[in-house]
Amino acid sequence: MNVMLNPGERIDDLLTNNLKIIQDSSAFCFSLDAVLLSHFATVRSGDRIVDLGTGTGVIPLLVSTRAAIKEATGVEIQARVAERAARSIKLNGLEETIRIVQGDLREIKDLLPNYRADLVTCNPPYLPVGSGEISPKSEFAVARHEVCCELADVAQAASRLLTTGGRAAIVHRPARLAEIFDLFRGRNLEPKLLRFVHPEQGKAPNMVLVEFVRDARPYLKVLPPLLIYEAGAYTPEVLQIYYPEGGVRR
Amino acid sequence: MNVMLNPGERIDDLLTNNLKIIQDSSAFCFSLDAVLLSHFATVRSGDRIVDLGTGTGVIPLLVSTRAAIKEATGVEIQARVAERAARSIKLNGLEETIRIVQGDLREIKDLLPNYRADLVTCNPPYLPVGSGEISPKSEFAVARHEVCCELADVAQAASRLLTTGGRAAIVHRPARLAEIFDLFRGRNLEPKLLRFVHPEQGKAPNMVLVEFVRDARPYLKVLPPLLIYEAGAYTPEVLQIYYPEGGVRR
Repeated sequence: MNVMLNPGERIDDLLTNNLKIIQDSSAFCFSLDAVLLSHFATVRSGDRIVDLGTGTGVIPLLVSTRAAIKEATGVEIQARVAERAARSIKLNGLEETIRIVQGDLREIKDLLPNYRADLVTCNPPYLPVGSGEISPKSEFAVARHEVCCELADVAQAASRLLTTGGRAAIVHRPARLAEIFDLFRGRNLEPKLLRFVHPEQGKAPNMVLVEFVRDARPYLKVLPPLLIYEAGAYTPEVLQIYYPEGGVRR
Repeated sequence: MNVMLNPGERIDDLLTNNLKIIQDSSAFCFSLDAVLLSHFATVRSGDRIVDLGTGTGVIPLLVSTRAAIKEATGVEIQARVAERAARSIKLNGLEETIRIVQGDLREIKDLLPNYRADLVTCNPPYLPVGSGEISPKSEFAVARHEVCCELADVAQAASRLLTTGGRAAIVHRPARLAEIFDLFRGRNLEPKLLRFVHPEQGKAPNMVLVEFVRDARPYLKVLPPLLIYEAGAYTPEVLQIYYPEGGVRR
């Protein structure tokens, strides 16, 4: 593929299906959270998927490997970040399946059609504005703090995008679980699947994965803990997520 | 102690502080859930405690061993069950600290003063009416199904009983976590502490312990999983809960 790199950018290997991704070493790079979310979300053949706040585009790229999806759209507010993600899609030759839309998820009605998505994913900023220092670099700040959107905006956009029975999958901090449930339930998105991510056995969780179903009845399935490390190395489950069967191991 | 036993009743050992409890072999006996809840709840010296739907009275008995509490009141709707619990309190010579009040927690305002408790505990019935077969024996049915009270009633009673900063601690099924959060938050009880109970490592949880604080700001602390069994035997943590330091081991 003939894709231009800007100064400071590099091409990283996504370690699955030979996917590659462009990242800027001095900007926000994707993390384990996005990889775990891409693996946690229920993805079905024929799905229309929207990833809110897509950043590097890592989530659309990874979910596209999980089933023969119809399409995935990554929404990104920052023009420079959106343009970089679009180049990553092109680098992988996936322009027919994945597109990047530059825009504000708080104005989702102007960007994408209502009630048409089967799955909405989001790895949102975790920190409310006012908690911790706001990063002076804008790309970091938007990714980490609720500068450009709050969790309520994510729930609102997901609710507007999803068809009845459609799913929303997010990753967040366990400390905000009660708010998360409230915000999504208040918009007809019922939490149906929950998994806590623990750094290791016996430790408190530092991430939580939640999948909601639009217009569903209350019944939450809680999965066994997902453990990241064991004796200083990734657990077999995390290795399997990073290098799924059929993926390319390097 | 000179306490009468009715036909079918037996005296069981609570394995801590030499406590004993009267149970009816043909009726609902306390379970691990109540023991775990009694250990999970934050109990402080001088606390005024109310246990809603106290059944055998096991929770007031156990929490009374955790700190020099001021008083504990067990509320029980079923007259025969309440009378049996009162005999257990007497059997242990704890009538000055623990009392049993026979009454309906849906009418809590007629039973106990408002905004005066530091801690409210509840091991409620887990099953909504209409799910599963209702036990024909009334004592079982009231303990297992929401025949006499729904979770909303529990949240309502707790909110009315607790002082600002007071705690409510419950045990329930993970499947209902989203409803639980909603019902309690809607009554100014913010979930602050959460622990899932798993039968063993790598298994999904089958119980959840939640502590709420009245009028608190949102921030949920999620504890490491509590594992019950390991290689077919109780884990050291569960053994420590059953036989706490200073308890009597038999």
